[in-house]
Amino acid sequence: MPLSDTWRAPLYEALLRHRSARPHSFHVPGHALGQALKETPAAPDYAAMLQLDVTELSDTDDLHQPEGVILEAQHLAAATFGAEETCFLVGGSTAGNLALILAHCRPGDILLVQRNVHKSVIHGLQLAQATAVFLSPSYEEASGLALIPSLSDLATALQQYPQAKAVLLSNPNYYGFGVGLEPYVELIHSYGLPLLVDEAHGAHYGLHPELPGSALAAGADGVVQSTHKTLTAMTMGAMLHMQGNRIDRPAVRQMLQLVQSSSPSYPIMASLDIARAMIDSAGPILFEPALACVSSFRKRLANETQFEAANLPIVQGQEGLEACYIDPLRAAVQDRTGTLSGYAIQSKLEAYGCWAEMANEAYVVLIFGPGTRDKDVETLLGAFKKISETLEPGRDRPNKSGLGTPLEVTNDREVHSDRISDPIPFGIHLVREQATEIISLQEAEGRISGEMITPYPPGIPLVYVGERFTQATITRLQRLAALGAKCQGASDSTLTTVRVWVKTV
Amino acid sequence: MPLSDTWRAPLYEALLRHRSARPHSFHVPGHALGQALKETPAAPDYAAMLQLDVTELSDTDDLHQPEGVILEAQHLAAATFGAEETCFLVGGSTAGNLALILAHCRPGDILLVQRNVHKSVIHGLQLAQATAVFLSPSYEEASGLALIPSLSDLATALQQYPQAKAVLLSNPNYYGFGVGLEPYVELIHSYGLPLLVDEAHGAHYGLHPELPGSALAAGADGVVQSTHKTLTAMTMGAMLHMQGNRIDRPAVRQMLQLVQSSSPSYPIMASLDIARAMIDSAGPILFEPALACVSSFRKRLANETQFEAANLPIVQGQEGLEACYIDPLRAAVQDRTGTLSGYAIQSKLEAYGCWAEMANEAYVVLIFGPGTRDKDVETLLGAFKKISETLEPGRDRPNKSGLGTPLEVTNDREVHSDRISDPIPFGIHLVREQATEIISLQEAEGRISGEMITPYPPGIPLVYVGERFTQATITRLQRLAALGAKCQGASDSTLTTVRVWVKTV
Repeated sequence: MPLSDTWRAPLYEALLRHRSARPHSFHVPGHALGQALKETPAAPDYAAMLQLDVTELSDTDDLHQPEGVILEAQHLAAATFGAEETCFLVGGSTAGNLALILAHCRPGDILLVQRNVHKSVIHGLQLAQATAVFLSPSYEEASGLALIPSLSDLATALQQYPQAKAVLLSNPNYYGFGVGLEPYVELIHSYGLPLLVDEAHGAHYGLHPELPGSALAAGADGVVQSTHKTLTAMTMGAMLHMQGNRIDRPAVRQMLQLVQSSSPSYPIMASLDIARAMIDSAGPILFEPALACVSSFRKRLANETQFEAANLPIVQGQEGLEACYIDPLRAAVQDRTGTLSGYAIQSKLEAYGCWAEMANEAYVVLIFGPGTRDKDVETLLGAFKKISETLEPGRDRPNKSGLGTPLEVTNDREVHSDRISDPIPFGIHLVREQATEIISLQEAEGRISGEMITPYPPGIPLVYVGERFTQATITRLQRLAALGAKCQGASDSTLTTVRVWVKTV
Repeated sequence: MPLSDTWRAPLYEALLRHRSARPHSFHVPGHALGQALKETPAAPDYAAMLQLDVTELSDTDDLHQPEGVILEAQHLAAATFGAEETCFLVGGSTAGNLALILAHCRPGDILLVQRNVHKSVIHGLQLAQATAVFLSPSYEEASGLALIPSLSDLATALQQYPQAKAVLLSNPNYYGFGVGLEPYVELIHSYGLPLLVDEAHGAHYGLHPELPGSALAAGADGVVQSTHKTLTAMTMGAMLHMQGNRIDRPAVRQMLQLVQSSSPSYPIMASLDIARAMIDSAGPILFEPALACVSSFRKRLANETQFEAANLPIVQGQEGLEACYIDPLRAAVQDRTGTLSGYAIQSKLEAYGCWAEMANEAYVVLIFGPGTRDKDVETLLGAFKKISETLEPGRDRPNKSGLGTPLEVTNDREVHSDRISDPIPFGIHLVREQATEIISLQEAEGRISGEMITPYPPGIPLVYVGERFTQATITRLQRLAALGAKCQGASDSTLTTVRVWVKTV
């Protein structure tokens, strides 16, 4: 990246200053600036980083009471991302989602929340003992992928539940599809409520003219971004941005203290500072190599192979979704011939050293960004070409009876047909208060689930604890199992059986 | 450290294997194995580590559903630390304490818990909406430092609250003082309850004949250890150990999913694997250089300077506390002449490049371990000598009227005289449900606190939200403020004012 003379990373630089004085450590962590690992095989990998892995010292500030370099780094981040206040997160977007929900919902309070959210939102509902009213997503026509709920459904829900404390949306989705939030903000603010946005996959939004606008720019009140996902922070490094007076900032700060480690990682915090410094220093040019690479990749993939990246979404007749967009730095690739599932493509790419972000039945999702180099994309295109050439039509053809076409099986519409759910009270002890039993999945229709089953990635729960199994849910789980999907929370990883509540007579 | 041919670190080695194939990354994190940072000033520090900062891939397992290298690494750790089951933590001991409490307490359930616990235990009570019965600590006579409650108080509390769900103790304390837990385990198990232990400062216990025994060896059911504190993991790397059938293991695993990031850090997880591998590979010899260093340091400090490390504790007439011990790898040092406070010693040591773990009015706490080298301890001793020699009796003498002797101000006994508290219901919204106001600290006697004030370190809350201010509490806060202590959670960092609930008429 081109570095300008505006490079400033006060938190990272404080760690460098601390190290440069060759300090003697008589504090935690016990590796003592890495000295403990010096004679181990791990030394070359950990040596430099552990010299920055310090603790709250008089020159390194305190995340939970920031007054020095951490506060300064957060102020710089707020300016860069357009927030009035930014909190660094060391527990990932998970910590931000938990804190936003805990700060706004007391037990029994209603949160309007889209159904296709990350499991951390569900965990937030559980910890807060909040009551969710789920809004079913809209769907992008061509891809069948789930977006945020329609504006009209949200308007209905707000009329129906004026006592709701906030609205939580997840935008963009895991596939890079999103919706402009301006009309949503206007509607939600007209009820005096805050809009909370899980923008985990959009930390880079608004930072280049070709990238979609950010939730903050659209006026959202509280926004969580995974700085590690599409920018350059270490994993678990994320940010929570706030603006305006509809969000309860003192409560959010207080809840962040509850859910995050009292010994936050300095390498992770400094990596947030560095990620922001790279943006400020390089400007939009930071994203240009990747944007150029991906643009060329999309064209050549479509022209030279049987694969294709999902194109700009088309949404018709759904109010509020006209401003639908796609992340140019993310490609949801499918096999146009319907021969290979997303899982199969992912597995074949790995054999060529190309590691994708995730796969589902239809798509393999590839992420590009400031770390992407031409050679990576060349290798990727080459891999797709070789996969095309070496396909054995007989062996690689899908089981027609079982899988259907990719688009059919990706579509979640069949599973949840109610657009606005009844209020569902969440709690953390529902399972333990109920006697449960293990039964065959195929006999589970009508039974109440005793486990939350979450295909991961994308990490969106398919069945919640306390939710009734429908035939559609069962069919979908059976397909996922047949395709080798990984499901978190399932008592039986093969999904042959599931845990349900014992029937009460 | 001497490495034997038993070095095995399956999780770390999986990351090395992944890296060695020179993979092309199209997944999160966006730094793409560090490529994004290559042209930044941060490259030398972050380069090697970011190559290991991957995500859940087909060869790197999944912390929240471990079946491969993470499961294997956890099994090896369980064997090393003497547990039946070990869970890696990436959110520090904080995550383990939250999960243990959430797993065992439904709203309103009673937990018997010692008063002098880390704030993460309080946060666990709040999130679980549990009811705490606090047991006041016993005190080690010579140092005035707080230990766990006496066995007789615990017996009384168990008789009084047979409906309690568990007992939570924090042992050893921040100063390295601890108590053998065997009689506590016997008593608690006789009520059929699990003993949960926050052993954050004792991850190294039981790993050398000169070190105290571990909580697991004493029979505790659930134990949280900060592997990063006294062993060699990265900060936020910790472990939760379980044994026996009194602890609800499925609930603990489920709660860990709730409170931890869905994108756990691989460098941190691998550092847990490496910390365990170092122990298995080197054996007890891993601790011998530090043990020898500290033993010599203690003698020379006492003989050659005015400073002294607290000695082996002496406890008389308190049943169960006979087996009191001190961590040989931790030194709580005070000025025998009473001239310098712990804070002042800490600050003076920093000027010589020696960074202590924490200080209070009386003590500065120094931690030694596998990362300690002879030269560090030589520098430290030299610093103490120079501080002794350069003291200006007039300028450095304490304000007699304000501070008293170190021992007087350290002693918490005056603050909490009730040995077994009434049940105190915790919740996360107590503050917001009450109107609060800011008043002068010196007028706060009898008022109910609207904030939790936690001197950090050691991170033990002095006043809980909902607890009444006593004159003793006020005096102690005023002394802490005068001595420059940092307090988390205080609305006024100078402690001139505090937030209290508005009086109801």
